This record gives sequence, structure tokens and C-alpha cells, in this order.
Amino acid sequence: MFEAAELGHEVDDESYERREAELREKLLAAQVELLQRKEFELVVVVDGLDFAGRSETVNKLHEWLDPRQIETRAFDEPTDVEREKPRMWRYWNALPPKGKLGIIFGGWYSDPLDGRFARELDEDAMDALLADAVKFERMLAHEGALVLKFWFHMPEHRQRKRLKKLEKDPLTRWRVSDVERDHLKHYGRYTRTAEHLIRETDSAEAPWSIVEGSDDNFRNLTVGEQLLTALRARLDAKKTPPTAETVELNTPIDGVEVLDKLDLTRTLDKKDYERDLLIWQGRLHEVLRSHHFKKRHALVAVFEGNDAAGKGGAIRRVTQALDARQYEIVPIAAPTDEERAHPYLWRFWRRLPRRGELTVFDRSWYGRVLVERVEEFTARQDWLRAYGEINDFEEQLSSHGVITVKFWLAVSQDEQLARFKERESTPWKNFKITDEDWRNREKWGAYAAAVNDMVERTSSDVAPWTLVEAEDKRYARVKVLRTLVEAVERRLE
Amino acid sequence: MFEAAELGHEVDDESYERREAELREKLLAAQVELLQRKEFELVVVVDGLDFAGRSETVNKLHEWLDPRQIETRAFDEPTDVEREKPRMWRYWNALPPKGKLGIIFGGWYSDPLDGRFARELDEDAMDALLADAVKFERMLAHEGALVLKFWFHMPEHRQRKRLKKLEKDPLTRWRVSDVERDHLKHYGRYTRTAEHLIRETDSAEAPWSIVEGSDDNFRNLTVGEQLLTALRARLDAKKTPPTAETVELNTPIDGVEVLDKLDLTRTLDKKDYERDLLIWQGRLHEVLRSHHFKKRHALVAVFEGNDAAGKGGAIRRVTQALDARQYEIVPIAAPTDEERAHPYLWRFWRRLPRRGELTVFDRSWYGRVLVERVEEFTARQDWLRAYGEINDFEEQLSSHGVITVKFWLAVSQDEQLARFKERESTPWKNFKITDEDWRNREKWGAYAAAVNDMVERTSSDVAPWTLVEAEDKRYARVKVLRTLVEAVERRLE
Repeated sequence: MFEAAELGHEVDDESYERREAELREKLLAAQVELLQRKEFELVVVVDGLDFAGRSETVNKLHEWLDPRQIETRAFDEPTDVEREKPRMWRYWNALPPKGKLGIIFGGWYSDPLDGRFARELDEDAMDALLADAVKFERMLAHEGALVLKFWFHMPEHRQRKRLKKLEKDPLTRWRVSDVERDHLKHYGRYTRTAEHLIRETDSAEAPWSIVEGSDDNFRNLTVGEQLLTALRARLDAKKTPPTAETVELNTPIDGVEVLDKLDLTRTLDKKDYERDLLIWQGRLHEVLRSHHFKKRHALVAVFEGNDAAGKGGAIRRVTQALDARQYEIVPIAAPTDEERAHPYLWRFWRRLPRRGELTVFDRSWYGRVLVERVEEFTARQDWLRAYGEINDFEEQLSSHGVITVKFWLAVSQDEQLARFKERESTPWKNFKITDEDWRNREKWGAYAAAVNDMVERTSSDVAPWTLVEAEDKRYARVKVLRTLVEAVERRLE
Repeated sequence: MFEAAELGHEVDDESYERREAELREKLLAAQVELLQRKEFELVVVVDGLDFAGRSETVNKLHEWLDPRQIETRAFDEPTDVEREKPRMWRYWNALPPKGKLGIIFGGWYSDPLDGRFARELDEDAMDALLADAVKFERMLAHEGALVLKFWFHMPEHRQRKRLKKLEKDPLTRWRVSDVERDHLKHYGRYTRTAEHLIRETDSAEAPWSIVEGSDDNFRNLTVGEQLLTALRARLDAKKTPPTAETVELNTPIDGVEVLDKLDLTRTLDKKDYERDLLIWQGRLHEVLRSHHFKKRHALVAVFEGNDAAGKGGAIRRVTQALDARQYEIVPIAAPTDEERAHPYLWRFWRRLPRRGELTVFDRSWYGRVLVERVEEFTARQDWLRAYGEINDFEEQLSSHGVITVKFWLAVSQDEQLARFKERESTPWKNFKITDEDWRNREKWGAYAAAVNDMVERTSSDVAPWTLVEAEDKRYARVKVLRTLVEAVERRLE
């Protein structure tokens, strides 16, 4: 794999200067266009052997381009907040907004590479992390980002020479640590690990490019010209292309959908309700205060449901049980302009709970496959791929100890109508009912189909859906509380 | 001071229920109006004696109001990222956006109170922190926030009884730790410290209210009704009032302003430039890599100047000297909608450098007293108070070890005209020149006066302005580099 990057490529200074002048002008023009159109972002991952010129080339890009529109991120040991969040959280945080160029040093490749080289990971564990990387990049590409990856290579004898030279000069000696010496000592094993990494994560959406690092001129020009070609091609393309594979949704042949199976006649009388509420609120309070939960877990509760199904009231019964310092409620409305400039899951990643805490999402990432699908705010291929992306997101939460519980609160059309009317006639409730609610009501069937698909495709072991019969508010509230308690208790066992 | 809160206030259950029902409805209506108008935010600070009912009352507010529109923050030991930033950084992060209610437990009062009680601070040190609190709250109020503060009090004998009761019950025993026992043991000293704190920080903009905590009914109703009264009054006020004291600006009687004194004929020939550039870039590289800088400091470089004065080119010469991983450039354009929903300095707080790093602001918080003043985007009393707020902000940076260096790049009107024309005629530069630039040019005098006032009022020991003669780009670039190097070296001495 690295043969072509060991040929001793060189570019003489004269040719370099000529090509650099032209490249620079074109790069700058492309960057200005990227910024002015703000249609997509450019994500460049740089990785490779030590001293193969990664940072020199990145510095050169900063020199050629307008550095004010570049966001460059390197990653040290995770901070304590980063450690509390799923592994990918800090990479989500590092994504540039549309219109900018983000340069990522190592990024999501550091853990698999370093971990495997240090033999902390076996090959399967490494491959699992690489599969995460592929999914993440595919998501980025489908969300419109242009993703490019550069691996800087260098033959062993040249690296040995460079290391010696750095060690001799007192001004550069600090750059060589035991880590680099160890990599060089096991050059064969290190490059084989890298080769495996590149093979597993090279994709049409986010291709790797291997660059020979020995000659500065050659290396910088190569990266600059490849970057220009890719960016130019994308800017000149008729429309932003990468469409996801189209999935066919299975409509049940008998027309029976999950919501049809709910028994909306279930009720709870007032006395039982008051007793049950206290019991389950008490247990929720207790389990969320347990040492084990506080140290290892966090809770995400997602509330979706028909308009006027009683989400607000149910959420209130949950938070009543808790101290205000332990939870946060995130009402999902239209995204802010910063949120709009990032992949759609970004706004949810930024609101994840800290360890030992609860975040309630009042509406959630499922808007993608509900309102955005029904109202056609999002193209078909984009909401279709959301199912997989959401499953992947929730799996990442789960494997980090975050317990995800999802509720769909269902009422009948008649009950909804009655509640709409009651809201309209109660002065301090009528802000809760808008023309939009009435319009949504007309699309009852389309929403039901969307819910059916959503439940079928995203109810998983790690984050199952709970359908809540919400015709009777008391019954619904107790079911919500009980489900939360049982989900947490099960996970703590 | 606490006499009125030791009278054994009580409200019987019957009156409570009647008043609660009415209060709740009115509170909810006011909250809805707050949210819909999004004109200001409500910041409520709660503090007080242990077990005097702070968290119970906050939980009650969550129950009465729509908890989805409340952001409640408590503060543990600072995280490692928080420790890297000035003390107030995490409180800035905790501010609610306009339209919401933010509840702050302790917040900026915890350090002075706990520190003084533990005798880690002497009285002067405590007072300095309290003065910071007053300034911060005044800024919030002037930016439009409604700030209310509640101190929960309880007489000693009642607190003693409550502590015993909590300790006896196995379900609540965990709430009593040595901290609370210690506070009670030194009840007199603790309340005297609190009394001092309240006296020093009670202000018209952010008044304290002392609430007797012994009786739940009395305590909750008191807080709820005071909150309603204040919120209602603000919502019903004709216009958002609190205007800052009006300062008279001193126009120099001889009409000579700071920019007039600049000698714009200074130049540097190419050979000297190339030599000096290398020297100062090398020194900048070196000093920012020094152990001492990396451990204790960070650098903020502010670039302001006439249009086409060469800010971009100067910034590029600075970053050329550095590794891309060590700096970030923040170009200041129109604020995002999240930024607009917060006090104007919020957007700059969120972009402060980490320890050992450099943040370059290409335009900055000085926009408030430059473009916003000249174009009348901001009311006179608001940009007038900005001078003090900015000085305060930069002092906070400085006392945390952040070195702030500020540049005004000045060119003559003739030179600007020549550069505008050159930009217009160079294809890959003409995106840099807009109608706005031409319009700004017509207001040359107004900008000069604004610069004069800005320099006079915000050039301080901790963050002096450097006026840069930028008629000759080479001279300007070297002066910028040299100033940066010398500022850092001076601080490291």
C-alpha cells in the first residue's frame, strides 16, 4: 500500500515556486466561494507517521489560505468533561460549520491506531472503532460535508535519519519523545497497523490519500493540489450530490400498524393514581440518587407523541420526583443558525447529560423521521438514512452507559379534538394551540405511518420505544414513570 | 439584617392553597409572555443557610412554572477546562438566553462566602470578589436581564432541630456532611459573613431578598409572589428601562486626537523587513512554546483598524510563526441568533483561549464602541457603559494570566483609497471590497473620534492599545510582531 509513497518523490524549487503561485490563487478563490455560499463544510483529516510532515503541511495550508476561515483541532488526553461523554462527543464538537475548512489532527483515528499498536485493543476491538469512523464519515458526507483524509508516509530509513537530525539539534530535541522512538523501533508493526486502518476506512465518501512526506515541496504541493481538485469539483458540481442508498419501507400488507394495537381504553382511577404516582416517583428519586447510577450512568428520556397527548404533563410528573439540579429539559424547536450549519444530530450531541444526570428531550432527533418526513422538509433519501444514523447514535450512548428511554404518547383523534377545544377555551392554555396543530391533525394518517416505520426501525435492545396509551392522562403518567424506573433498575443490575 | 426572617413566619395550609392556585396561574401566564416576547431573560440567584429550603423552593418553582423553559445550574468543583478559564467563565456559560428563566445556585457568591468562612480569603480579598459580582450583575441588568436574588435564612435553634431530624432519618442522613455541621457550629460567624456579603452586593439593579425558610408554605409563597411582582412589573413597563449613568466624553479642546500624532511616513525597506520578520517570528515562536507560557498563560491578540489597513496580512505574519494547533483566529461578523440572545460580551467569553494558546480576534468587542457607535446600532447609554465593562473584562483576563494585546492599524485616507482601488481591480481580491467599505469611508471623522475615545478609555496597564502606523505594510507587520513578543516576554519575567 505504501510502495508509491516510498519512491523518493521530489519537486525542485523552481517548479515548486511556479506551481505554488498558481495553486495558491486558486485555493484562495475556492475558499472564498466556499465561505460565501455556505452550502457545505470541508473536513480534512490528517494523520500519518511521526515527522512525515503533517503539521508542516497544515501550517502551509494556513499560509496559503485565509487562516481566519480555518478551524484546526488537535486532541490531547480527554478532559474530565470529555470523559463523561461518549467517545465521539469531542469530535462532534470539533466539526466546522458550513462554509469553513476544519482540519482534524488524528481525530477519531487516534484511539484505534494507538490502542492497537499498544496492544490495548485486539483486532476486533480496533475494527469496531474503525467501523464507527466509517459510519461517522458517511453521515458527514450525506449531510453534505466534503471529507478528505491524508496519510503522511515515509520510508523507514528516511524516518530514522530525520529522527537523528531532530535529536541532534537542541532547538528540536523536545519533539522526539519515547513515543516516537517506540514507533520507529517497531516501524513494521506500526505501518502494518496503519495499513489495516486505511484499508478498513477508505471509502467513496471519505477517501484516504497517501502522501510521501520526505520532500517538503512534493508533500505540500500534493496535498494542496488534491485539496483544490476535490473542492473545485464539489463547488462546480450542479448540485450537492451524495444521496444515500434508497431503502424500501415495508408497509404492513394487512394495513395494521403498531398504533392500532394500543388499547386506549386503559384508565387509572384517581385513588390508584395518587398512590402509584408516589410509589414510582419515590423509586425514580431513589434509583437516580444511587451511587452506581451517579458514577457510571446518565439518563436520556425522549418524549414524542400526538399534539395534546400530554407530554408536558408527563414530563412534569417525572421532574417533580427529582431535584432541579439533577435534570435538564430540552424543548426542541426550530434549530438556531449555528445548529443549522452542522449535521442535524449535532444539536442533540451538544445537549447530552453529564454523568449522573437526566436530560429530558421534549421532542427530539425523531423529528427527522416524523414532522420533517410528513411535511417534506427533508428529502426522502435523507430521512431514510436517518434511521440508521439514529440507531448508531443511540448505540454510542448506550455503550457509554447512557440509558435511553423513548416514549410515544398516543391519543385517539376524538380525544385530541376534545383537548384542542378545551385549550382554546381556557384563557391561560390557549397559547398552547396554534393553527399548526390543526393542520397537523389533518395529516393523522401520514403521521401514523411515520410512527409505525419509526418504531419498527429504531426500537432496539439498547433503546426500545415505549408506546404509551395516553387517552387517560393518569394511566399515561404512571406508565411513563414506571418504564423509566424499570429501565434504569434493569441497567443497574 | 436577619431579624425579620426570624419571626417564625407561617402560612396555614388553607390560605396557602388559595393563594397558590392564583399565584400559579399568574406565574405561568407571565412566563409564557416572557418566552413569547424574548426581550429579556430572568436570572434568579438562590443562596442561603443549609436546609433553609433553597432547593425545595426551586423545585416548587419548577412545579409551578413550565419547567421546559427553566435552566437551573449548580456548580461543583470546577472542571479542568473551567480551571483554565477566568473565574467568571462558567457563570457566563450558565446564563439563560432571552425569554427564559435561569436559576443559579450560589453561583458567583460561593467563592467569596466559602472562601471567607474557611479563612482562605481575608476581608479585602472577599470584597474584591463581591465587587466583581456587583459589576457582573450591573452589566446583566444593563443588557436587559431582570436579576433577582434570594437569601434563605433560618434562626439557629430551628436549623439545629432540622439538622437533627435529617440525621435521624436514614433516607436523608446523607444530606448532612461535615460542611453543614461546621456551618452550624459557627452559626454566628457564618451569618455575619453572609450579612456582609448581602450588604456589599445589594443593589437597585439586582436586589437581595431575605426569606425565612422555616415554614414551607411561607417560604414558597414569598419567593413565588416576589418573583411574580418583579416579572410582571417588568413585562408591563412601557419600555425596558435601566439606562446607565451618562458619561460626558471629553473632546480635546485643541481638536488633536491620538491618531493625528501618528507618523505615517515610517517605512521599512525590504531587506530590513525580511530580516526583522524572521527575528521576531522566531522569538514569538520561542516564547509561546516556553514552559512558563504554556503552564500559566494564554494570549489574546485583538486586531482593529481602518478598512484595508492590512489586518489580515498582519495576522498572517503572526500565525506563520506558529503551529496551527496552537492558535485560533476568530473573525467577528454579525452575531448568531444564540449570541444575540445573550449579553454582548458573551460571544467573546465563549471563544477565549485555553492555557498555552493564542486567540486572534479579527475585530472584537470594540465593535461596540466603533461601528455600533458610529452607525448608531447601539443606544448612546449602552456604548458609553461598554468602556467600563470592557475594562472589567480585560482585567479579569489579566488576573487569570491571559495576556491581552490590542492593535489599531491606521492608514491615511489617501492610502486607503489607493488600496480600495487596487482591490477592485484585482480579480481575486475584489470580494474584499464592498459598498459598506465605501460608506464607512465617508464617516472617517466619526470613526477617528470613536478611536480617540476608545484608546483614551480602554488603554490600561493590563491591556494597553498599540497604535500601528500601517501606511507601510512592512513596518506595520514588524511592529505588530515585536509588540506581541515584548508583551509576552514582559509578562513572563
